[in-house]
This record gives sequence, C-alpha cells and structure tokens, in this order.
Amino acid sequence: MDFLSQVNNIKEQVDFSESFRRDNCRLILIAGMGGSGVSGRIFSELCPKLHITVVDSYKLPDYVDESYFIICVSYSGNTEETISVANMAHERGLRVHAITTGGKLKSIADEVVEIPAGLQPRQALGYLLMPLINTFMPIGSAERNNIKNSLELVKVEDVKKLSEEIASSGKIPYVVSWEPYASISYRTKTQFNENSKLSAINHVLSEQNHNELVPLSMNKNMKNSFFFISIDGDSNSRSRNRMDIMEKNAGLNFHHITAKGDSYLARYFYLIHFIDLLTYYTGISLKYDPEDVGVLESLKKELANIR
Amino acid sequence: MDFLSQVNNIKEQVDFSESFRRDNCRLILIAGMGGSGVSGRIFSELCPKLHITVVDSYKLPDYVDESYFIICVSYSGNTEETISVANMAHERGLRVHAITTGGKLKSIADEVVEIPAGLQPRQALGYLLMPLINTFMPIGSAERNNIKNSLELVKVEDVKKLSEEIASSGKIPYVVSWEPYASISYRTKTQFNENSKLSAINHVLSEQNHNELVPLSMNKNMKNSFFFISIDGDSNSRSRNRMDIMEKNAGLNFHHITAKGDSYLARYFYLIHFIDLLTYYTGISLKYDPEDVGVLESLKKELANIR
Repeated sequence: MDFLSQVNNIKEQVDFSESFRRDNCRLILIAGMGGSGVSGRIFSELCPKLHITVVDSYKLPDYVDESYFIICVSYSGNTEETISVANMAHERGLRVHAITTGGKLKSIADEVVEIPAGLQPRQALGYLLMPLINTFMPIGSAERNNIKNSLELVKVEDVKKLSEEIASSGKIPYVVSWEPYASISYRTKTQFNENSKLSAINHVLSEQNHNELVPLSMNKNMKNSFFFISIDGDSNSRSRNRMDIMEKNAGLNFHHITAKGDSYLARYFYLIHFIDLLTYYTGISLKYDPEDVGVLESLKKELANIR
Repeated sequence: MDFLSQVNNIKEQVDFSESFRRDNCRLILIAGMGGSGVSGRIFSELCPKLHITVVDSYKLPDYVDESYFIICVSYSGNTEETISVANMAHERGLRVHAITTGGKLKSIADEVVEIPAGLQPRQALGYLLMPLINTFMPIGSAERNNIKNSLELVKVEDVKKLSEEIASSGKIPYVVSWEPYASISYRTKTQFNENSKLSAINHVLSEQNHNELVPLSMNKNMKNSFFFISIDGDSNSRSRNRMDIMEKNAGLNFHHITAKGDSYLARYFYLIHFIDLLTYYTGISLKYDPEDVGVLESLKKELANIR
C-alpha cells in the first residue's frame, strides 16, 4: 500500500555508486531469493544498458571474478541461499555489497545499504529497488513526479472488480507479459502465490508462443483451468501482435492490464502497484489473510535444523 | 527416440572452436526460441565455467559488444526472433555463428554449423546440443560410452506406466528440479506442452519454496489441480532437503524421476531421454498425435503477414 512512500523515503544517496565507480566493473551480479530476489529480476530489465545476472541459488557461478560487482539482496539478512553466495564470494576474495535490514548478511558484507525493517520482503519492493536505481540509473525530481502521478492512476475500484472475478472463477491465474515488462509476470505470479494463496503461471511472450499455444488451443481441459491475464506494457511490438493472434486463434479471453504513466519507469511502477493491490484484494475475496505466509517460516525453521 | 544416434552422428569436429579460440571472448550469448532455444538453456547449465547468457526475444541486449561470442540457434533457420537478434548483431558489427538446418539464418550468418533437417526442433535436441558441447567442452569416447550406457537404463515400461498415470489423472503436470539439473524442468514443461498437449508448470528449487509453498500448503483446490513430478538429479543437496520437507509439510505426493548414469552429462542425458519418452507416451495415452503442432505453424504464417 505504501509503495510510493518507499520510493520517496530512499531518495537520498543511499547507494553503492561510489564503490561502483571505483571498482570499474562491467558486469553486475545480483543474488537474492523470493520477494527479495525479485528486485534483481525487475531491475535487470529496468536497466538494460548493464549486463546484470540474477542468481537465485546457493551457488556463486564458477565464472564470477573481480570483474563482477556483486550485490546480495535479502530483506531479513538471514536467507541461507544468499548468505551462501556471499560466503563463496569472500572465499574467492571478492567484495560483497548488500541490501538488507540486518541479520547475518549485514554482519558479513563489505558494504551495506540498510533499509527499514518490519515488513514482509514482498511488501518492501520499493526499499529493495531504490538503492539499485540510485546506484546505476539515478532519477531526479521530474521522474519522481512521473512515478507519483502514475501510481495515482491505479483505480482501486477497477482492481477490486478484477480481484473478485479472479476469486470467484476458481481458476488458476495465467499471466503473460512481454519486453520491456517481461519481469512483471514473475512478480505477479509470486504475489498471487503469497498474497492470494493461489498457484499461478507466468509467461513471457514471444517464448510462450513457441510451446504453450499447443495445449491452450488443442486441449479444452487446459484452457478451462486458467484465468488469463495479459500485462500490456508495450502496445507497439511484435509480441503485442502475437497476443492478438493468440486470443483470436485459440479463442482465449485475456483480461488486459494496461500500463499508464509518462515514462517507462512510471509505467513499470504503475503495474507493480496495480498487481500488489490486485493480489491483496484477491486474497481478501478468497477469505485468506494476505499477510500470512507461516508455512514458509516453518520450512525455514525446519531446514535450519538440518546441517 | 533417436537421441543417442544424434549424439553420435555429430561426433566429428562440427563446432566453432577455432573461431572461439581466435576471438578470445569471455562471454557467450546463445539466442534461440522454443525447441531450439532450450539447447542454450541446457548447455548453459552443462558448462558452468563459462558465463552463458540465453536470449529468447527479438532483441540483442544493449550491452553486447565484441567481447561476446554470439551463437544463434534456430532449427528451421527462419525463426523471426532469432533472425532479428542476428541482424542486430550485424548492425553492431559483430560476428554471428549459427546452428541451423538452413533457412534465412544460414544465409546471413558469418559461420554456420549445419545440422540434419526433417525433424521438429524439439526432436533435434541432440543435433542442437552437440555443436555447443564440441565447441566449449569436447567429450571423448569414454564419455560417449557413459552416455550410451545411461540411455540404455531408461526402462520404457516404467515410462509408459507413469505416462498412463499422468494422462488418467486429468491434472496439470507440476515439475520441479534443482541445480545442477535446473534447466531440465523447463524442457519437461515444453515437452508436455507440445508432445502431450498438456499445460505444465516448471519450477526450480530452492526459489520455488519462497513463494509456491503457500498456495500448495494452504489451498486444497490448488494442490488438487496438479500432478507433481520431481526430477531428482542430485540427491545430496540442500534442495533435496527442501523437497523432503515440502512433501511432508504440505502433504504433497511427488513422483520422483531419478537420474541414472556414470557421469554428470550421462545423467543429464538420461533425464532428457526419459522426459522425451514420457511426454510422447502421455500424448499417445491422451489420444493426441505427439507430432502435431499445427497451431504453431498457423500462428507463424499469420504473423509473417503482419509487417
């Protein structure tokens, strides 16, 4: 709900830009899992001029050396995969930059951007993203104003109406987006998972066309299992043509969520905010507590006991 | 069915190793879509010492320059996304290497590995993979023998039994794998899509745990929608621990497909072959023609008329 205030709260120079200039790296590696790691996936798309590799595993890739600028993102600071990557970097003599609220990651990283605590990681996307934006593609007051204006364009009544349709359908959300808004479909899936307690499928056009079109066109059982959502960031691309042909040929009825805003970043943030609200209200409609992810906490505890 | 003969047919030095040595690139970019592109995804995992970026879109990333070794993979040679990437590389003055049977890609690429024609791309994974293996991690007769032996361990009766269970369940396959067999879950999904005409969900542990566990544990409708398949490549990892805890805590009953073979590559190829047969027989059980992907051909034709 407070995405805009997160964006604005971290407007000071909270970033790694000084060490990034000094280290003179060409390659960026962002390690993180779940609600923390999604910031890396989204940022790698927001900043296409840089080669950003996102790692969502225990392992620092073998090829990583001092030509990579390493950022570990873990909201809690205690994600075991991300700590494992940080330790592997240290074993290789590499510097670790961290975005975190604290935890073990804060104590082992060489340079830390500390962000406000007390949220679920997925509620802190603004806090997790802004240090990356400040470091690699700083924005000024005009862009902040674009973002503010675009977020105000999200109409809660429209969101609630769609959330009720999704909840009452009893179906699995099937989400498609395309470049330069490809990563938003993954964020949407994870937000349906955690906020709405719904499994969900995420795809990116045009790759989706190369395989998924077959069951959706030829197998009615499959088609009837899904609630189709298209995230229309860009309306002037070959992928948009593909979407139109797919809807017509396979007889699919997609609900279109269309980006609004005066800049690319503003439109991206409009979609993030729309999806946050949509998945929240879908959870409410299904009589779930959107905040409750107790099962993840239990798994982490149980796993911590296995060494 | 003839995966092994494909692996053995391309045993001569059909590769780009000479130009790779000459160009002295540290970074590899493999562009390709669908059944062609999946070779890049799998190869990037098979060869972890190299930083391989897989591009499944129309766009050569902005950051790509002469320090990248570019390989475009398109079985037909006429995939519009892959040709677009090749053209963008040429506009930037970069060399394009291609793995293809012919088509436009053959005529525009600077260096071509030509592979046998007449198959569906997804049936040609051996032909598509071997030039990459020959170039970057050549194998000898001992490893070829390992592969031969492991493929012979695939028991068709076991495969058929599982395929009938999947077909008669009426459910959506939900496939999980983990490093160093992460990419096989994507291949499995696409093979279910095209060979079996089933939608399918693919995930990689441990990232899957960070969001999907919530609906699978808390929402019975979701849990009951899926036929759970675990691809157990590596049995000694934290991800394997996660799988065990997930099955127990969420009450999920996964069907485990366990890799067999005397080397990593042999085990990987065992899984590829098992999945090819599994998805083929699942299609047969569902009374579909595993070869038929006519809807994809129609889409491509229709798209070609929009300029």
